[in-house]
This record gives sequence, C-alpha cells and structure tokens, in this order.
Amino acid sequence: MRKLAVVGIGPGNYENMTIRADRALRECDVIVGYTVYVDLVKERYADKEFLTTPMLREVERCEMALETARGGKTVAMICSGDSGIYGMAALLYELRGEAAEPEIEVIPGLTAACSGGALLGAPLTHDFAVISLSNRLTPWEKIEKRLACAAEADLGIVLYNPRSKGRPDNLRMACDILLRYLPEDRPCGVAHSIGREGEAGEYMTLGALRDADVDMFSTVFIGNAMTKMIGGAMVTPRGYRRKEVPDA
Amino acid sequence: MRKLAVVGIGPGNYENMTIRADRALRECDVIVGYTVYVDLVKERYADKEFLTTPMLREVERCEMALETARGGKTVAMICSGDSGIYGMAALLYELRGEAAEPEIEVIPGLTAACSGGALLGAPLTHDFAVISLSNRLTPWEKIEKRLACAAEADLGIVLYNPRSKGRPDNLRMACDILLRYLPEDRPCGVAHSIGREGEAGEYMTLGALRDADVDMFSTVFIGNAMTKMIGGAMVTPRGYRRKEVPDA
Repeated sequence: MRKLAVVGIGPGNYENMTIRADRALRECDVIVGYTVYVDLVKERYADKEFLTTPMLREVERCEMALETARGGKTVAMICSGDSGIYGMAALLYELRGEAAEPEIEVIPGLTAACSGGALLGAPLTHDFAVISLSNRLTPWEKIEKRLACAAEADLGIVLYNPRSKGRPDNLRMACDILLRYLPEDRPCGVAHSIGREGEAGEYMTLGALRDADVDMFSTVFIGNAMTKMIGGAMVTPRGYRRKEVPDA
Repeated sequence: MRKLAVVGIGPGNYENMTIRADRALRECDVIVGYTVYVDLVKERYADKEFLTTPMLREVERCEMALETARGGKTVAMICSGDSGIYGMAALLYELRGEAAEPEIEVIPGLTAACSGGALLGAPLTHDFAVISLSNRLTPWEKIEKRLACAAEADLGIVLYNPRSKGRPDNLRMACDILLRYLPEDRPCGVAHSIGREGEAGEYMTLGALRDADVDMFSTVFIGNAMTKMIGGAMVTPRGYRRKEVPDA
C-alpha cells in the first residue's frame, strides 16, 4: 500500500513535536512542505529527500506529495501546528478524491491554541472559538459574523493569522467588531513566535490589542467574561459554578 | 526555585505525547493526577512516586500538587488532552494566587479537537468552536446559547463531554438546538476512545447524531456548511474561495 502521512509538527521546535510525528519523519523517504517549515526540521532528519514549494502554492505542494507517494516512496508532508486545523490534510483528501491510494495517515500536532495558550498561562480552560483573520480564502463578512457570534456567546476567542503583509488592518477591524460586545478592559494575550527564536508572551486589554504589534507568527487570545490576570498569567477559570462544587 | 509542571499527556497513548511532556515525566520526582490518567502512564515511569485523587476532586488534587512542590520535590501534574483546554492549569494558578512559588510550567498536549479530528479525517480545516456539554460547572442555558451562536456563525463544532452517567440526554438536547439552524444531513463524526483501547471513528448525519451511542470517552464533530465525506473521511475544505486562488 502506497502511504502518505500528513504530519503536524507543532509550533516548530523538536520538543513540542509528538513521539508519533518524530517517528513518521524518521521512517519516511521524503519530506514535503512549505520551505519555511522544511527548514525547521531539515537538520534533524538530514538523511531524507526534501521537496518544497513556496507559500500559497498549496495545491501544487499536495499534488507533489501525492505523486511522490504513488511512485512508491513513503512520504511525510509536514504542516506547522496541527495537520488538520488550517492544515493540509483536507486538501490531500480532496485531491485524492475516491481513489484508494495512497493511504493517507493524519498525524495530529499541537495547534497554536494549545501551545500559545500554555505560553500565556491558561486562557482556554472553558469553551472557545478559533477564527482565522485571513480573508485570502474566506469573505471578510463571514469572518465578521463569526467574531460577533463568538463574542455574543461569551466564548474565549483565538485569532490565527492576525496580520500579514497584504492585510495590515485585519486585527484592528476585528477588535472594532469585538468591542461592540466586549468591554475595553477584557484581558487579552499575544503569543509571538511560539517554539521559535523570539518566543514571547504579551498581555494587554482588548482596547490596547487594537493597536498591538502582531505579525504572521503571532496568535491572539481574547478572554471570556471570567478571564483575569493571576500571578502574571492569563487565566480563565474552569467553571461558572465554583461555589456549588463540594470541594471548590 | 520550587517547580510544578502541569503536563498535557494527549489522548492517552505514549505515541501522542510530545517530546517535552515525556521529558517532564522522566525528570520529575512525583506524578500527580486523576487515578485513571495516572494508570495510563504508570508503567512507563515506574520509578516515580504517584499521588492520585478520584474524579471531581480537582481542588484537592491541585492542592496536593502545590504542597508537594513547596516541599521541595519536582512535581508533574498530568491532564488528559491539553493541560490548559479544560485542564488543570487554571486551577493551579488560581490556588497559587500571587505567590511566586512554586513556579508553574504549562506543558501543552494534544487536545481531542486535534487528535479526534485526525482520527476522523480533516473536519476542522476552517474556523470552529469547542464546547463542553458538561453542565456540572456551567449553567445549561449558557451552553445552549453557545451552541446556537456557533451554528449561526457556520463554525465547525467540537463537543467535549457529550455524555456522562449523570447527563444521559445532553447530546440529544444539544442536537435539538443545532437542528434549529443546521440541516439534518449535516455530516458529523464521533471519535471514540482516542489513543486507547477501543479507538474508533464513526460517521453519521446530524439527525442520526441525536440518538448516537456516545460515552464520556467520546468527542463529537459537527461539520460546517462545506463539510463532506470524501474517500471515507470527514473533510472540511480550507476556504470559501477556492476558485479564485491561482493554483486551486
């Protein structure tokens, strides 16, 4: 059976990869990925063959992975974060269609909601929404609607892709929508370059987030109504009924 | 410095732990956790001291971990899935308050949205909400509101804790709310016992999900408007503008 593993490598450092992802990269013949992600793993798996394509060339990259697997090589296609959440697994399924080969194995990885949340403290202890601010593949009106609904539902909110060269104002526009529902002093956090050089957590209010310095390696966390700063960390308590719980 | 690591061990099997979580468990003196989770790691880290408390005794368990760390031992407190998302990290911060010690290190792990999604295919390629159906610590009305908002916003939805002994009807009640907004034939999936004995993925419509056989080790995935079954997997395509992308 021809085999293609789509591997979530987590935020980028070896430590935050799973045992299973590491094994898949050690056991494959070819590693396929976006140039920047391949550079993150190249040194450790130096005996592999590498195939890369630049950013935005996702279809081409997936076709390359499928073709290489059909040719008989064991392929690992890497994604940053999780392989499913905003990752390449879906596109591989779409492009393979109803064909039986190659077999696709989806190997999960730490998405930024997990790794960035840990960097900031515990902002996502309760229900939350993950929303990408990239309007490259999604109409902005749809993103606006999701932000409004998430705020109205008192969900914690994680924003992926808060900024890119072509979209310098998306975070400000998103904050303006959220500020219709949420107070200016709502605790927020930004996780910068998780697991890479320059990793840093930063805390601020929703009012200040509007003008925060974020880039394409930032992940933004907006607290729910219970979120507060405790001991220097962003913390969302677990429940709304602490006092009723026997041991709480 | 006294040190307490709160460690997300992922769904339960060694393979799905991160390198960093494995290292923290190897390097600590004492492993603290809910009995069922401690049983998952006991064999591999057999030289450690183990401290357990039964289910629901979260405050007691966290106090035990903090106290042991204050006593000078290096403690790893384990959580299934992620240490932050519905995990114990927040409660540790709350109980420690503004004290400087012990230092709390939050080590993230694969949450069921990642690991269960991978088991089913690629259901979460686009924006989504994670909602727990446990009303032990949250009023049911709040859960209802979140379900309604998530459906209205066309978010993918992941349901944690879809059922427990005390709450046999929560999934049915949740489906009834979702069915006010979403069609009966909306593709859904259930990930059973991820990474443990009995692991299995199951696919069905939202109409059928209402009467599905789920337990406390199940995680439920409800697709967005674009989700479909492709090649036997539940797949949510990445974007809403595929045709406009040059290489798509």
